[in-house]
Amino acid sequence: MEPTSTKLITRWAGAEPTTVEDELVVEEPLEIRVAQQSLIVVMRTPGHDFELAAGFLYTESLITCSDDIGVIAYCDEDVPESQRGSFASYQNIVNVQLTEALDLETQSGWQRNFHANASCGLCGKMTIDAVRQQVSPLNSGFRINQTVLYQLNDRLRTAQSVFERTGGLHAAGLFSETGELLIVREDIGRHNAVDKVIGQALLADMVPLERHILMVSGRASFEIVQKALFARIPVIVAVSAASTLAVDLAQEGNLTLIGFMRGQRMAVYSCPERVHCEA
Amino acid sequence: MEPTSTKLITRWAGAEPTTVEDELVVEEPLEIRVAQQSLIVVMRTPGHDFELAAGFLYTESLITCSDDIGVIAYCDEDVPESQRGSFASYQNIVNVQLTEALDLETQSGWQRNFHANASCGLCGKMTIDAVRQQVSPLNSGFRINQTVLYQLNDRLRTAQSVFERTGGLHAAGLFSETGELLIVREDIGRHNAVDKVIGQALLADMVPLERHILMVSGRASFEIVQKALFARIPVIVAVSAASTLAVDLAQEGNLTLIGFMRGQRMAVYSCPERVHCEA
Repeated sequence: MEPTSTKLITRWAGAEPTTVEDELVVEEPLEIRVAQQSLIVVMRTPGHDFELAAGFLYTESLITCSDDIGVIAYCDEDVPESQRGSFASYQNIVNVQLTEALDLETQSGWQRNFHANASCGLCGKMTIDAVRQQVSPLNSGFRINQTVLYQLNDRLRTAQSVFERTGGLHAAGLFSETGELLIVREDIGRHNAVDKVIGQALLADMVPLERHILMVSGRASFEIVQKALFARIPVIVAVSAASTLAVDLAQEGNLTLIGFMRGQRMAVYSCPERVHCEA
Repeated sequence: MEPTSTKLITRWAGAEPTTVEDELVVEEPLEIRVAQQSLIVVMRTPGHDFELAAGFLYTESLITCSDDIGVIAYCDEDVPESQRGSFASYQNIVNVQLTEALDLETQSGWQRNFHANASCGLCGKMTIDAVRQQVSPLNSGFRINQTVLYQLNDRLRTAQSVFERTGGLHAAGLFSETGELLIVREDIGRHNAVDKVIGQALLADMVPLERHILMVSGRASFEIVQKALFARIPVIVAVSAASTLAVDLAQEGNLTLIGFMRGQRMAVYSCPERVHCEA
């Protein structure tokens, strides 16, 4: 499936309507299964689905390394032909076969995931507590130069190929400590873009990402910080705002959370000592 | 709880870091219960929580009118004191008591909701089919003038009080057919802002919203269109892009979906005949 699709639309400028072909970002559900057991359905932009599945399992702490993954494959043959819909290509279910059996009912990571995403009597404090119990705070030794950080926005934007055409995608980029863009992914879902980046890093045996920077094109929410913490990423840079809960969790995890990165300006919400100034 | 909170942050401009007080948007989980049975946890900005709960139930088609709702109340007394965390105000669980018993296990709306949000073997076509089975297409008689549409963006932006201070919120606005802003809500979650608007309309006995326009400050996704269809809103205006699945569902439901509303320009993705030109 392609990440974009063309449709005939009516474009108005002032009082003048014109019918034109337009390129839209594709949104499709993806069901992620573990050992054929359904885990979650996410609305995503098709492409890099295996990385998305791997990244989701890793950043929800259901697996801890790439060796935990046996085989990742589409399993749409399980869906009866009559229910497959009208898509030319039909790849909306991914199954992950793990090397060791994962008991979703009792596995603590799954419990936490379930609690964070579905339903329980949680509150913000309990959520942070639950995550904190699972991840030790990041090492504080890693430092980053502010001139490196100022370069990231342009580099991410230059690599956002689909966004340029459709305006409908979030991007996430993984950078080295020298500001080199290593992985970039775009998706209609902010979390998916992050999962695809981290999943790619996982499958390439780059994790833990202890000397890397994660950049996101939009806002920094609690869940983005949570995902970065599980991947041991010490610095998140967001183009837009951060929420209170994101900052609280970043402080707990000793993660440097930066927002409103625009030009030579930024807002450092947590662990500012990690950013140092080069004269 | 307030929608914003101040924190000490480090603002960098060039090579100069300064410690300043900054206003951040609050992100907190809200658990929505029906008859004390947990339905979902959403990450939301506190405020208008009852409207959010009512709107969620309505736009997920679990209820059909305000008469279905008996009492909506916070029920945090159910949470043991030791688990309440450190928030000064603690209102993160809302219970909705319905006038008639709702059986979540067998109710078709809940089944669909569960399918759309949690886990099943769905595909895009099945999702659209499932929604289509529940809603009849909108009446095509409603027409709207393009000059009315061009005014909405400025009016919504002017009413976005929290966004101005934090830059971290999505807005949704409900407009009359003459372009009057009737309800505006802001939230860290796009869907929540829409649910709060529609929930307010539901509780004020304004539904079905057959001669209204819904405007959202960001993109138009499948789920936004789905929520509007259940509230019988014939026109959605988004500041940014629409996805393929959103357009497909809008076409099925005879809903006019408009994106990239900027100044005197817009892109009409579906049912363009509803927009007419005033000389």
